[in-house]
Amino acid sequence: MARVGTRVVEGNRVAARERLLEATSSLLSERDTLDVSLNEIAVRAGLNHGLVNYYFQGKDGLLLALLGRDAAQALRALQHLVEQDMPPLRKLELHVRGVINVYFRYPYINRLINVLQSADAENAKDLARIFIAPLQGFQKKIIDECRDAGEIEDVDETFFYYSVIGACEFIFHSRRTLPYLAGPPEITTALKDAYSDHLVRFVLDGLRIRAEHSA
Amino acid sequence: MARVGTRVVEGNRVAARERLLEATSSLLSERDTLDVSLNEIAVRAGLNHGLVNYYFQGKDGLLLALLGRDAAQALRALQHLVEQDMPPLRKLELHVRGVINVYFRYPYINRLINVLQSADAENAKDLARIFIAPLQGFQKKIIDECRDAGEIEDVDETFFYYSVIGACEFIFHSRRTLPYLAGPPEITTALKDAYSDHLVRFVLDGLRIRAEHSA
Repeated sequence: MARVGTRVVEGNRVAARERLLEATSSLLSERDTLDVSLNEIAVRAGLNHGLVNYYFQGKDGLLLALLGRDAAQALRALQHLVEQDMPPLRKLELHVRGVINVYFRYPYINRLINVLQSADAENAKDLARIFIAPLQGFQKKIIDECRDAGEIEDVDETFFYYSVIGACEFIFHSRRTLPYLAGPPEITTALKDAYSDHLVRFVLDGLRIRAEHSA
Repeated sequence: MARVGTRVVEGNRVAARERLLEATSSLLSERDTLDVSLNEIAVRAGLNHGLVNYYFQGKDGLLLALLGRDAAQALRALQHLVEQDMPPLRKLELHVRGVINVYFRYPYINRLINVLQSADAENAKDLARIFIAPLQGFQKKIIDECRDAGEIEDVDETFFYYSVIGACEFIFHSRRTLPYLAGPPEITTALKDAYSDHLVRFVLDGLRIRAEHSA
């Protein structure tokens, strides 16, 4: 009996923790700001305010846990991609599109990473551990596969990471200036898809006209 | 006599304002944080604390003015480049190297743009006006020149901006996580130069091996 009770309690704990994370995710997506109070999150989750501190050491802990959850999901998808049997360049293309889709689907993730990155060394260390290092690891596998297949030039993996992820995330990073510049005022699905098409071509072929095109 | 006196006063005003900006720039570069007090800035400039509010509406106004100063300098250099008579692709290469050099030379500029971008709509609007719109204008000229010379494929100028600037700035943006990842722990001159070499190749030729290489 005690064991069943413990499982039920465990189940409730997990459910409550996930409800808080899900509520945070929804609110951050709707509001387009990290300035959401723990009280609002608790109300959205239908739980007691005090539970936030119980499960996550304050707001910082909650945001880090949310990033961990979203990052884990994105990394699982990337791992799945890496394990697929498909032409290496196609894998590279799908990876680039996948990264853009993550930023598009979780509009707060960019701001979340920014805040964690600039806050303090401990957060930067956690960010590297839960998101960046694993991501770089999967990218290395894709790059190695493309290189071994003779499809791409030799490239420094770290430089690949900074240039490709940088090119993926900057448009989302700059989203608040979009209304004041030439071009669409916001990142619609159509814009996201068009930008993905551009970036895939860019990563594979750069800008220079290739001699064989003139044939 | 009154006119000379006025010119002297004007000269002193300009000098004081510039001393405050220069002091801010130095402190931000040394400290690698925007968390520098107005008092420290006044002390570094050798001026009275109250003058900061006199010249710049508080710290936000001071940071925006500093960005304006640094942006103006970078944009003047870019304009000079655009006006040069040189092969268009060489111009494009120098532009990419130039952008990376700006981020390298002013280590705070990235954080400054981030803060201004996320703070509020008014700041985002100012940022677009004083820095991004002019930068995109000069880039358009370089791209048009390259395209007219038949050197590069057709490319959406806005997408070019986001992918190239994104690829330039992300390594500086991520600088606090560098110590916790594979690769150098900080951005040295050698790393900056190697990354610039990579990015120029990347922008011009992408990753894919070109058929003519096997000849």
